[in-house]
Amino acid sequence: MENKYVTIKRFIDGLPSGLDFELRSAPLTPATPQGSEDVIVKNLFVSIDPYQINRMKEYSSSQETVEVARRLLPGQRIDAFGVGRVVASGNAEFKRDELVAGMLGWEEYTVVRPGVMLTKIDSNLDFPLSYHLGILGPSGLTAYAGFYDVCKPKKGEKVLVSAACGSVGHLVGQFAKLSGCYVVGCAGSKKKVELLKEKLGFDDAFNYKEETDVKSALKRYFPDGIDIYFDNVGAEMQEAAVANMNAFGRVAVCGAISRYTDAGKRAAPDMIDVIYKRITIRGFLAYDHLSIYDDFISATSDHIRHGRMQSLEDISQGLESVPSAFAGLFRGDNVGKKLVQLAHI
Amino acid sequence: MENKYVTIKRFIDGLPSGLDFELRSAPLTPATPQGSEDVIVKNLFVSIDPYQINRMKEYSSSQETVEVARRLLPGQRIDAFGVGRVVASGNAEFKRDELVAGMLGWEEYTVVRPGVMLTKIDSNLDFPLSYHLGILGPSGLTAYAGFYDVCKPKKGEKVLVSAACGSVGHLVGQFAKLSGCYVVGCAGSKKKVELLKEKLGFDDAFNYKEETDVKSALKRYFPDGIDIYFDNVGAEMQEAAVANMNAFGRVAVCGAISRYTDAGKRAAPDMIDVIYKRITIRGFLAYDHLSIYDDFISATSDHIRHGRMQSLEDISQGLESVPSAFAGLFRGDNVGKKLVQLAHI
Repeated sequence: MENKYVTIKRFIDGLPSGLDFELRSAPLTPATPQGSEDVIVKNLFVSIDPYQINRMKEYSSSQETVEVARRLLPGQRIDAFGVGRVVASGNAEFKRDELVAGMLGWEEYTVVRPGVMLTKIDSNLDFPLSYHLGILGPSGLTAYAGFYDVCKPKKGEKVLVSAACGSVGHLVGQFAKLSGCYVVGCAGSKKKVELLKEKLGFDDAFNYKEETDVKSALKRYFPDGIDIYFDNVGAEMQEAAVANMNAFGRVAVCGAISRYTDAGKRAAPDMIDVIYKRITIRGFLAYDHLSIYDDFISATSDHIRHGRMQSLEDISQGLESVPSAFAGLFRGDNVGKKLVQLAHI
Repeated sequence: MENKYVTIKRFIDGLPSGLDFELRSAPLTPATPQGSEDVIVKNLFVSIDPYQINRMKEYSSSQETVEVARRLLPGQRIDAFGVGRVVASGNAEFKRDELVAGMLGWEEYTVVRPGVMLTKIDSNLDFPLSYHLGILGPSGLTAYAGFYDVCKPKKGEKVLVSAACGSVGHLVGQFAKLSGCYVVGCAGSKKKVELLKEKLGFDDAFNYKEETDVKSALKRYFPDGIDIYFDNVGAEMQEAAVANMNAFGRVAVCGAISRYTDAGKRAAPDMIDVIYKRITIRGFLAYDHLSIYDDFISATSDHIRHGRMQSLEDISQGLESVPSAFAGLFRGDNVGKKLVQLAHI
């Protein structure tokens, strides 16, 4: 049989467009040969994440860091987090028809080699499958680890979240509210701002595109200063947050989406503020915080069951929609976690 | 009697020069009135520190942070760390002729009000008086707290120190060597580079003025990457250090001298490096680390007594040399801790 997959046609420099990608197919034997420990998974949902752009560049310093950040070559399959159903397995831990989550790919089927991350989906958790990529998956862990482990919030602290309607941001804001913080989100449309305030319980929210001077905007939204800035965007917003920060403020740098597609978009926070206000700016990857994974799943499942947290998802249909779904991330098209559904159970 | 003091003639914008200052005098009664708890100190040495420039500006965000950073007005006396001899005291803790260290000023005599920091110099510590401003004073505590509390060094780590011949830098490098780290210093002259390598035991050192591209220079000096950057300067050097940093690298931001006199000199470290390499950039003030003060004094005194640490001092003579000593800091004139000696015991 043929297995269709998405690949880049060339290295990408700047903003990606659907034209940078193509669908290809490769032959696949839907059975595992004798002695193989491979698991063949039919992919149901795949995650569409901004960080993948750094893998599609001819060079990015990130490519030399962790395994999941390594460079992709034109023509190669693109590994990505996903959920799927086992169709064949040489690994005794996984049986045909079981549901799994792990490092799958932007493709119809993934042959998961031994050592690649794959876990069974706990059938006691009665949540939509898509949640295992978002609120209960890598985005959720990123929000939880970044907020609790990196920002170390205290009740009553003032929290700014950028890309607050994004996959991670909308969860951070909800964790912050549940921890007794005051939370303001910034996002790029009127619709997103309304969602944050009306559906997700943010104390306030604003559309950064309507602000000519983000530094004064933050001064209006935080008359008593910012204690925590959960940064998904970098550049001017980080500078403005540092300028409005209180003593011992913390910036958790989760993403720098403005920088990913424009090398000139650097954040230049004022070091006078960093020194005198004893600010910490810290980059992190959820990856290093697996020790809190069980806490994360148990706390978050509980919040969902009791209606204390909501998941925002933005789901496109079909493998062929992956390129435009991905390119849309950099235009701010997505509202919540961006996923593509490739097949139904 | 008359008490001569140094003051600014106007707020300073940009590089300071001797012409921004003047000597004035004010009447002083060399006795404390009945009921007063003031202590009158004849100043022997005063500390000349770059941070004072931020107090001399019409506005700097730093002025709204801690007490020692508050704005100075033209005509006002300038408080500064110093050592001196008590000439009159209404405070039972301090007696005439005792030697003291604390917040004195760029003036012949200081009237130390109750509540202002003042401590007796321990006569059991048989060190030169000037050491209480440098290696055993605020510069030493800054180096010790910044290196041990903020950088949290591990044996074998690779350390970069900028302004490595400065008041704090030359001590940080020595603490780092004593902790089993590999240390490279950068400084602004051939003479300083030689001092670092030959007198202070740095593993290597370079003159940044001879490098056209500091990022590649650091790649040469650190083929295995940088784990710790003790930052006294900000701007390009911080950017280059972050670009050459290893996973979990730490930047302790102690000073940003390039930024103090030029608002355009911002550090714009690449957030892609900060995220993927999980780098922490943290500003600090020694002020917050007083809990390790006793450890600092005991460890450092011991290092000095056993010849394991050296103090570099650069001492000018006479109150009238204060303005040019201060202006010289921003040209890199000083080699080691800059002090002015106002009188002899």
